Amino acid sequence: MPPIITVTTDFGLQDEYVGVMKGILAAQAPQAQRIDLCHTIAPQDIAQGAFLLQAAAPYFPHGTIHLAVVDPGVGTARELLIVRAMDHYFLAPDNGLLTPFLGESLFQHAIFIDCPHLYRRPLSATFHGRDILAPVAAALANGADLSRLGRQALKENLIKLASPTLQIDRIHGNIAGSVIHIDHFGNLTTNIHQGVLADLKADPASIQIFHKNQQVTGLTSAYASRPDNRVLALIGSRGYLELAVSKGNAAKILEGKVGDPVRVTLSQGA
Amino acid sequence: MPPIITVTTDFGLQDEYVGVMKGILAAQAPQAQRIDLCHTIAPQDIAQGAFLLQAAAPYFPHGTIHLAVVDPGVGTARELLIVRAMDHYFLAPDNGLLTPFLGESLFQHAIFIDCPHLYRRPLSATFHGRDILAPVAAALANGADLSRLGRQALKENLIKLASPTLQIDRIHGNIAGSVIHIDHFGNLTTNIHQGVLADLKADPASIQIFHKNQQVTGLTSAYASRPDNRVLALIGSRGYLELAVSKGNAAKILEGKVGDPVRVTLSQGA
Amino acid sequence: MPPIITVTTDFGLQDEYVGVMKGILAAQAPQAQRIDLCHTIAPQDIAQGAFLLQAAAPYFPHGTIHLAVVDPGVGTARELLIVRAMDHYFLAPDNGLLTPFLGESLFQHAIFIDCPHLYRRPLSATFHGRDILAPVAAALANGADLSRLGRQALKENLIKLASPTLQIDRIHGNIAGSVIHIDHFGNLTTNIHQGVLADLKADPASIQIFHKNQQVTGLTSAYASRPDNRVLALIGSRGYLELAVSKGNAAKILEGKVGDPVRVTLSQGA
Repeated sequence: MPPIITVTTDFGLQDEYVGVMKGILAAQAPQAQRIDLCHTIAPQDIAQGAFLLQAAAPYFPHGTIHLAVVDPGVGTARELLIVRAMDHYFLAPDNGLLTPFLGESLFQHAIFIDCPHLYRRPLSATFHGRDILAPVAAALANGADLSRLGRQALKENLIKLASPTLQIDRIHGNIAGSVIHIDHFGNLTTNIHQGVLADLKADPASIQIFHKNQQVTGLTSAYASRPDNRVLALIGSRGYLELAVSKGNAAKILEGKVGDPVRVTLSQGA
Repeated sequence: MPPIITVTTDFGLQDEYVGVMKGILAAQAPQAQRIDLCHTIAPQDIAQGAFLLQAAAPYFPHGTIHLAVVDPGVGTARELLIVRAMDHYFLAPDNGLLTPFLGESLFQHAIFIDCPHLYRRPLSATFHGRDILAPVAAALANGADLSRLGRQALKENLIKLASPTLQIDRIHGNIAGSVIHIDHFGNLTTNIHQGVLADLKADPASIQIFHKNQQVTGLTSAYASRPDNRVLALIGSRGYLELAVSKGNAAKILEGKVGDPVRVTLSQGA
Repeated sequence: MPPIITVTTDFGLQDEYVGVMKGILAAQAPQAQRIDLCHTIAPQDIAQGAFLLQAAAPYFPHGTIHLAVVDPGVGTARELLIVRAMDHYFLAPDNGLLTPFLGESLFQHAIFIDCPHLYRRPLSATFHGRDILAPVAAALANGADLSRLGRQALKENLIKLASPTLQIDRIHGNIAGSVIHIDHFGNLTTNIHQGVLADLKADPASIQIFHKNQQVTGLTSAYASRPDNRVLALIGSRGYLELAVSKGNAAKILEGKVGDPVRVTLSQGA
């Protein structure tokens, strides 16, 4: 199978920036398949970029190359990284964007990119996605060895984002998490993974979910399982607890925002 | 020619959803050419999705595979379909999204998708575009036979959208239709096809078009055929009567909305 | 290397227009790599389209085919062009969109497109991007000779946009330019190229940049070189002087607009 290169940025859609990066990939690794993940990450929102990468990567095959640029520090002393994790490759600035892949169970190897012979000349101080990451991603797609693209980076030295609070009280069966993403449909995605609920042997029919003044009892399996315009909770396609509104926009109706606390209790008596 | 797979959704551009579906296509049918038709269908707006598919499909070659997801009922008992029509393949939920291809002259065959061995595991209840339609589309691109992908569906049993009203009074030469789409430029597309006008032997120079308080006499051939900011009527590139404003936005200037009645009379005396 | 075809339009993302053009390219030149440059050019904003093409083209390899449609005059007597410049091919209406490539140093050859046997039938009067430019671009990608696609056009006869004012006073070391583009991050791009500054032997540390009531002294090398929310000036990735705000949106903070005058003085004494 020809290699896949995904591209994720906060560049938006109104400039030629994304197209130019893909042009370099097309010229230098024409056999690769280029896939846009998302270019509407809010400017400089590293956490949102990390979330989308984490959500998307498991659906791509081993060997996929993920090129991610949310890079407020471009042109300063910050390093650029290649992280090998899950048998994928991730190229990004060392600013926390790759935090999800630095955990013990996924992380395999990392390098600080250092291969000036591959960089575009003249090298700008403002667009390393174009001048460094795109040609290096193309080299990887062409089979370049990691050891030739930079020097080893110790995981401990890489910048990591703080995780949004997730407190699990196993004794009383309470979970305190938060909204970490709002999707196009207005669904509020929390950082409470279905694995946590399973681990606590939560009964899907009786758990209570609290957000602001809203209380929802029980999980539904589908968005349309409740009457239109009713608030509901379910496990979304990314595996996390979501608050949604049947045929409606939960973010608008609940005035939900990233960072909002969400609380779960496993039983009504809790 | 390598197969073409088009992708149409209401997923928007701010999530990884579209990229993940295309990643599955890229991994499982790398030889196929993937083309985005539109991902900004208004959430759950099945009629708009159907309109865009109908408008786009004739410009693709025979054998094209169209994957369309506007799926408010995902995870409920609704079926997923493959419709063969115009020698193309259309994959979508059975919710009316494929209505334009169920007419006598285009429809060829339909199946309810039923091939669990192809589905992604674990199968989510909220994202069948990723877990079912993408791998099935890839299988089609790889030459799978329809009969191996599900069980025959009778056209009469498939869900169809009601057509927007179109009344044709041949005796007095009146047509009562409506706005069915507003495009990026603000042009108001009606459901009055040029074939209807030809059929009535309408004189393009003298027909009258009425929308709200606006009256336009005669069709122009081009948007720029009238002075700037003048309301005009023409046959748009999809073959339908459109109201437009030269170098302006008709939807804003005329306060036009989908569903607005549009009336045509073939002569001034009518 | 398979040929690259870039696509730039003012079609937006809510219609099937771009997808249909790419479908024609996919059907008629499946070996070509299609790259979207931008589809959110403001409707009919020829100058913005020209700017993006100029900014993007140098990052593509020789032989790249650029298909650009910002075409308010579609269906009128305006011509369609192929311009050969920089060893690239540019297809667009003759309305100024290709102005950047008509300069002495880049321009090589031009033809008025005239090859009806390649056009889609029926030929619409409202969508020549689909019916003419896409099949002609595919023919070019398949090796068609320019001389078979139309008749020679003299550069002097092609429509050119007026350049935004750029006055250079070499004696006093003053430059009077303007904002020509605002990017997704809100950075104000001026028409003052780094080459002009180099030519005047400007000292990056001491030049003064004036925009409205704002005065900035000295160029920084990176957006993050200044404290957050500080206005700064630098050479952007396109090679032009930009006004930006560290981790902020300069267009909002400075109320900047395309056309705003920007003045540069090379020394504090000026």
